[in-house]
Amino acid sequence: MAGMAVYSLCAADGLRHYSPHVWKVILALKHKGLDFDLRPVSFADIRQIAGGGFSSVPVLDDHGRLEGDSFGIALYLEQAYSGNSLFPHDGQNALARMVEYFCDTVLNPSLSVIVVRQMHDMMPPADQKHFRAVRRKRFDAEIEEIAECSTGEAKRFPKKLDPIRKILRDQKWMAGNAPAFADHILFGSLQWHRICTGASLLPIEDPVEQWFQRCIKYYGIALTVDRIDAS
Amino acid sequence: MAGMAVYSLCAADGLRHYSPHVWKVILALKHKGLDFDLRPVSFADIRQIAGGGFSSVPVLDDHGRLEGDSFGIALYLEQAYSGNSLFPHDGQNALARMVEYFCDTVLNPSLSVIVVRQMHDMMPPADQKHFRAVRRKRFDAEIEEIAECSTGEAKRFPKKLDPIRKILRDQKWMAGNAPAFADHILFGSLQWHRICTGASLLPIEDPVEQWFQRCIKYYGIALTVDRIDAS
Repeated sequence: MAGMAVYSLCAADGLRHYSPHVWKVILALKHKGLDFDLRPVSFADIRQIAGGGFSSVPVLDDHGRLEGDSFGIALYLEQAYSGNSLFPHDGQNALARMVEYFCDTVLNPSLSVIVVRQMHDMMPPADQKHFRAVRRKRFDAEIEEIAECSTGEAKRFPKKLDPIRKILRDQKWMAGNAPAFADHILFGSLQWHRICTGASLLPIEDPVEQWFQRCIKYYGIALTVDRIDAS
Repeated sequence: MAGMAVYSLCAADGLRHYSPHVWKVILALKHKGLDFDLRPVSFADIRQIAGGGFSSVPVLDDHGRLEGDSFGIALYLEQAYSGNSLFPHDGQNALARMVEYFCDTVLNPSLSVIVVRQMHDMMPPADQKHFRAVRRKRFDAEIEEIAECSTGEAKRFPKKLDPIRKILRDQKWMAGNAPAFADHILFGSLQWHRICTGASLLPIEDPVEQWFQRCIKYYGIALTVDRIDAS
């Protein structure tokens, strides 16, 4: 067992870690050059991590010290490990916060509709039951009904990236000349879709897709969706 | 006549310049330490600026060179004048873009309802007629009907600033340790409301209000709303 681990929601196959928030932390850890294990958990397991206290993943276990919330984990890593900075310049903390807000309010609600069926289908049975109940409460609809909106939502999705596209036309990374946590946050959202569907919502010539492929290459994320290349 | 001027929409009194986008540029010019005149224009005048070609303010006239669009003007100023940077660190361009998107999609639609009547009432008669037609088209309602939603919208407004509040709890300026164009953009939105109403939507202890007052002091913006302290 490695001294550093990330608790992560995972498909029934034990390989496809799908949470966008976990992916932010995977990239942050790789960015810092830190070794870690991914520990698959079910929804029911989350409440049991380290005797309770967490209601969502990721949870980082750094040699017994526990941190929850992806942004909180990034701030912790930045303070605890002096390597390659996650917030390398003045104002980068604000940039990451604004990108996080954009993902939480614009991209993720849309993606949660687009991938609803695939997410459900990849889960272990107990997680499926929990997921169905949570989605029923949020959408006042069954998985199958939400999934009917998937195609339409996927068509509207690329346009939602316009403000990001404007940025990535002018510079290689969200954070500027080199990637940082602002990039990891955006990557988490698009990787969530990719893990669930194996496909991309964007044409290869889209500056956002170009940036996504750049992230995959830079951090050595395996191109197949059924394996996590956790170093 | 100064060599540098900004065309700006203005109240009938010729003093209250209310456009949030003009205010971004006023702060950017002050940030750069540049002297400029504000040239009041009516809606009808905009199409006549420099023989046509512009459909909105601000328009910057820099000794005969014309630039439109507030973000475009900031990029132009940054490249043309080497003083105090508007995008001082790597990633600040992206930060400013994200803040601009947040203002355009979250704050400004809300503020446009909150101040609709005051904006209308302060305009010269010809502008009032144009404004009424534009608002009728956008809201499918008369000024008086939109204004009925003002109080409710004002109550909901402070909550919309949550992501900004999170940032300004941790740091003095949006851009980090010193103000930059990301701050000017956000200032423009709140100043628009202040010019129109003479009041604030936020309690003085709110970190966002504290930051707003900090901007006013830092850039020497007169505290009375009926005078522009254009240097």
